[in-house]
Amino acid sequence: MIKVVAKSKVMEDKIEEVLNLYQELVIETRKEDGCIQYELYQDNEDSSVLAMIEKWEDKAALDNHMQTEHFKRIVPMVGKFVVESTLNIYHKMY
Amino acid sequence: MIKVVAKSKVMEDKIEEVLNLYQELVIETRKEDGCIQYELYQDNEDSSVLAMIEKWEDKAALDNHMQTEHFKRIVPMVGKFVVESTLNIYHKMY
Repeated sequence: MIKVVAKSKVMEDKIEEVLNLYQELVIETRKEDGCIQYELYQDNEDSSVLAMIEKWEDKAALDNHMQTEHFKRIVPMVGKFVVESTLNIYHKMY
Repeated sequence: MIKVVAKSKVMEDKIEEVLNLYQELVIETRKEDGCIQYELYQDNEDSSVLAMIEKWEDKAALDNHMQTEHFKRIVPMVGKFVVESTLNIYHKMY
């Protein structure tokens, strides 16, 4: 199992636009094989900070996700409004 | 529902010690009322990067967690070995 936290800070005036783009990404991604969890979160104190928190069956499922039409179309659109981002791929310890 | 991601970078030579401390914290915290999820993850590429990923029923449960004996005892012990850390508290969008 693979855990992913993809955190982004987006432009203040583009938050709504990014949320709409991410909503479509969430809907499409949850249909994928090997996707256990794919949820979008917004920071309680800074609404421009968003985090996609994901769980995948294995690395192959995650790699496949990044080759889907919806990923390759939507992620670059979001990217135009991202100020900074961090991506961590984790394994569970406890 | 409240989502928490508490990410830390710890000293390279203290990773095992921190993992042991966090293991006890996980065991004790999962017994708490209002704790839905409390899991420790380690970064696949940098084993000194750890993330506690949590889900709480509400803010009161999270506040109560930070007042428990195990939290007040273990978190400062971990803190001595933390190089940098970020805490985000999120609400779910999608």
